[in-house]
Amino acid sequence: MSKTLTNRKDDYAQWYNDIVLKSGLADYSAVKGCMVIKPHGYALWENMRDQLDRRFKETGHQNAYFPLLIPKSFMSKEAAHVEGFAKECAVVTHYRLKNDPNGGGVIVDPDAKLEEELIIRPTSETIIWNTYKDWIQSYRDLPLLINQWANVVRWEMRTRLFLRTTEFLWQEGHTAHATRQDAVEETERMLEVYATFAEEYMALPVIRGVKTANERFAGAEDTYCIEALMQDGKALQAGTSHFLGQNFAKAFDVKFLDKTNKQDYVWATSWGVSTRLIGALVMAHSDDDGLVLPPKLAPLQVVIVPIFNKDPEAVAKINNLAGELMATLRKNNIRVKFDDDDNTRPGFKFAEYELKGVPVRITLGARDIENNIAEVARRDTKEKAGVSLDGLAAHVVQLLDDIQANMYQKALDFRNENTRKADSWEEFVSILEEKAGFVSAHWDGTPETEDKIKELTKATIRCIPLNNVMEDGKCVLTGNPSKQRVLFAKAY
Amino acid sequence: MSKTLTNRKDDYAQWYNDIVLKSGLADYSAVKGCMVIKPHGYALWENMRDQLDRRFKETGHQNAYFPLLIPKSFMSKEAAHVEGFAKECAVVTHYRLKNDPNGGGVIVDPDAKLEEELIIRPTSETIIWNTYKDWIQSYRDLPLLINQWANVVRWEMRTRLFLRTTEFLWQEGHTAHATRQDAVEETERMLEVYATFAEEYMALPVIRGVKTANERFAGAEDTYCIEALMQDGKALQAGTSHFLGQNFAKAFDVKFLDKTNKQDYVWATSWGVSTRLIGALVMAHSDDDGLVLPPKLAPLQVVIVPIFNKDPEAVAKINNLAGELMATLRKNNIRVKFDDDDNTRPGFKFAEYELKGVPVRITLGARDIENNIAEVARRDTKEKAGVSLDGLAAHVVQLLDDIQANMYQKALDFRNENTRKADSWEEFVSILEEKAGFVSAHWDGTPETEDKIKELTKATIRCIPLNNVMEDGKCVLTGNPSKQRVLFAKAY
Repeated sequence: MSKTLTNRKDDYAQWYNDIVLKSGLADYSAVKGCMVIKPHGYALWENMRDQLDRRFKETGHQNAYFPLLIPKSFMSKEAAHVEGFAKECAVVTHYRLKNDPNGGGVIVDPDAKLEEELIIRPTSETIIWNTYKDWIQSYRDLPLLINQWANVVRWEMRTRLFLRTTEFLWQEGHTAHATRQDAVEETERMLEVYATFAEEYMALPVIRGVKTANERFAGAEDTYCIEALMQDGKALQAGTSHFLGQNFAKAFDVKFLDKTNKQDYVWATSWGVSTRLIGALVMAHSDDDGLVLPPKLAPLQVVIVPIFNKDPEAVAKINNLAGELMATLRKNNIRVKFDDDDNTRPGFKFAEYELKGVPVRITLGARDIENNIAEVARRDTKEKAGVSLDGLAAHVVQLLDDIQANMYQKALDFRNENTRKADSWEEFVSILEEKAGFVSAHWDGTPETEDKIKELTKATIRCIPLNNVMEDGKCVLTGNPSKQRVLFAKAY
Repeated sequence: MSKTLTNRKDDYAQWYNDIVLKSGLADYSAVKGCMVIKPHGYALWENMRDQLDRRFKETGHQNAYFPLLIPKSFMSKEAAHVEGFAKECAVVTHYRLKNDPNGGGVIVDPDAKLEEELIIRPTSETIIWNTYKDWIQSYRDLPLLINQWANVVRWEMRTRLFLRTTEFLWQEGHTAHATRQDAVEETERMLEVYATFAEEYMALPVIRGVKTANERFAGAEDTYCIEALMQDGKALQAGTSHFLGQNFAKAFDVKFLDKTNKQDYVWATSWGVSTRLIGALVMAHSDDDGLVLPPKLAPLQVVIVPIFNKDPEAVAKINNLAGELMATLRKNNIRVKFDDDDNTRPGFKFAEYELKGVPVRITLGARDIENNIAEVARRDTKEKAGVSLDGLAAHVVQLLDDIQANMYQKALDFRNENTRKADSWEEFVSILEEKAGFVSAHWDGTPETEDKIKELTKATIRCIPLNNVMEDGKCVLTGNPSKQRVLFAKAY
């Protein structure tokens, strides 16, 4: 397989597929719509998971694990959930195979039909709230702050690696509270955890907002979200946090005695991010040569590549220097590797590590060393510089921070350049057709107008930003009065 | 729910269920045979996972993730695998629900039937080797050392919390090698990783051995295992490592070009441990008052409980002391909590933390503090002692090590006392009936004798120990000649 990627400007979608496959993030599988997450992609997910998990625990949450399989009848218990949530689920109907009496391998044993079919979880609100019924009796059991790391299955018809797959990995938080206010605060707190993670670790600026009723999670009273802008000007929803009111508590009859001995339904939230974030990371930062990964999440942060030399003394010098450098960098908790594989030329290695998005490459050559320098290349800008061997490790530590900051700033600048106000329908349409990006425009607040705009332009309301300024205006489509702008975009 | 447990000697099985449920490790779920892993149980699993994962990475393995769903036809590709592996699998036949036109909630959409049914993975050899076919072309792609953390489903008819559940969490390593020897060495290396983890972290002495042909994994040439003894004298298989020969490579046509440009099938191993280890941990160490957890894995290692006091000055003194102690312990990477909840009496807290298996409890009372001491209680022996406040933290650090060592020694002594040689059939039967434990006996090496012994006594050959001494003897059942003893036991 050639390592060369399609260029972004020639075919952005093909570039994305190329980079995911060729950099070793993921592979297609034998099962339609399911992918294999390869070691490089999984290492990235582990780093994301560990950082998020730490934040969940710091905010008082505990992990638990609930069954993969959900009784079909559970899906019908919460009216809005069953109406609004996609019906495309994997359904388990049998529990046994048997040898084909005609010798055709194995067949499904018709005698092993389940009385009630089971659904592979597309999300776990129902089975979790059915469990919470037994766990919550009094205000002393609240808040109940639980998170689960799990796989889920949604039978998607059109799939794309990481962005939309039939099976994906995610975390889903499910919390229970004594008051509406506690639950709303939790919803907002977790949105902020996601936003901070995206900005500080993924180097991805996000808009914090609330979804319109049309785009709300099925069963939620409010869906908060973070929205990011990709390099092709499309938006991507990077995480959601739902205030569920008392809907699931009522559906599963979860009541508690409050301090005054009065019984009430429990208030709920749920929130999640998934392996989709890897797609966001790729599409926000990477270039035509491969991945560009933020140092804080890169599985490998620094690679040291020696230049071939036939003189054993020179080789020994290079090896010693590499050993010392690695030791110092590791003391600074930096993930570093010395690639002294003799069977691969340095140029090939350079291309390979660029493809994989390693933030910093250090080249050690005998001639450079004689001059007391090493060549240091940064992946984000592709700049190279000779750096003095004295203080090289300190330079690299600082450089990783600089790269992290630069990647964020670059993405922020891009988003700012690609967020435009539209005050007329013509302006609105021309921005979406010619420039893409976020369009900030007035909307009359009705689902009908939202639907009509989507039909006409394919753009949806990504969110009503939380930090919105109130201003009087007129809806871009209907001209009806509006109190604030909302953010439109075409989206993944 | 009463916190009191059934006594082990009254009803060991009931004691086990009681302790798992009441200590908050797990709960039953709405889905037959599936459990909910509660926060305390999941925290234990996280600690086990992190330690194992570190060892896997230190031995050169990378994590990846393969699909949950496996095409039915894959199950028939490896002849021994399909013959020997249990047919009790969850089968997905449809991919969509729809609203019942008669208003009965949701029903399975008959129009959404899959062309080929999918199986929820009971283990992943087939889908992984189908993928390896694309990943392996030459010796340069080998060894391929991959591990996966995942959930699997086996439709068990008789389930027990952690020990045998329809869905469980596990890791499965799947490696590919250029030579038989490399694969055998990998199989043995990973067995040793498991054994060391069991002994050093779980405080669980294990016998390293090889399974007989009867007990081998379906598709393996050799199955290595670690076997542990529970307090009721039954054995428990705590981990397996399989040498798969070229069986799966042949079934999925995975060949590679070696250094001499000759094509050959790849050699394989697979190895796994699961949440079953939590069951082993409970049954090996715990007592009639609750869990006894080894400090290295306990989610909480030290709890500090203050004695109520009405004097605010005394309370301030206790709080200060607790704060300092926590800071020092945390610097030593000890997981510690100060439980100053005013609504719960100290005696109740003591019982609760005993139930949950916290290794060390420190009680801070005003009168003790005046005498410059604190009461320190260890969970394993239930001994209490007044310890000088000077050097209290250092004492606790040492105590945690002592508890870890003591728990291992106690389990080892128990196993030694309950491992007996039997040289006649009468002796063999009477040990199994009256004392249980491991029985070391000669066996004539035939599957028929093994089956007959199982039928007569319910004991199986747990393993042929790796460190076996060769000696001539006669099979306990048939009197036929034998070259070595094997280890029998009734087992979970």
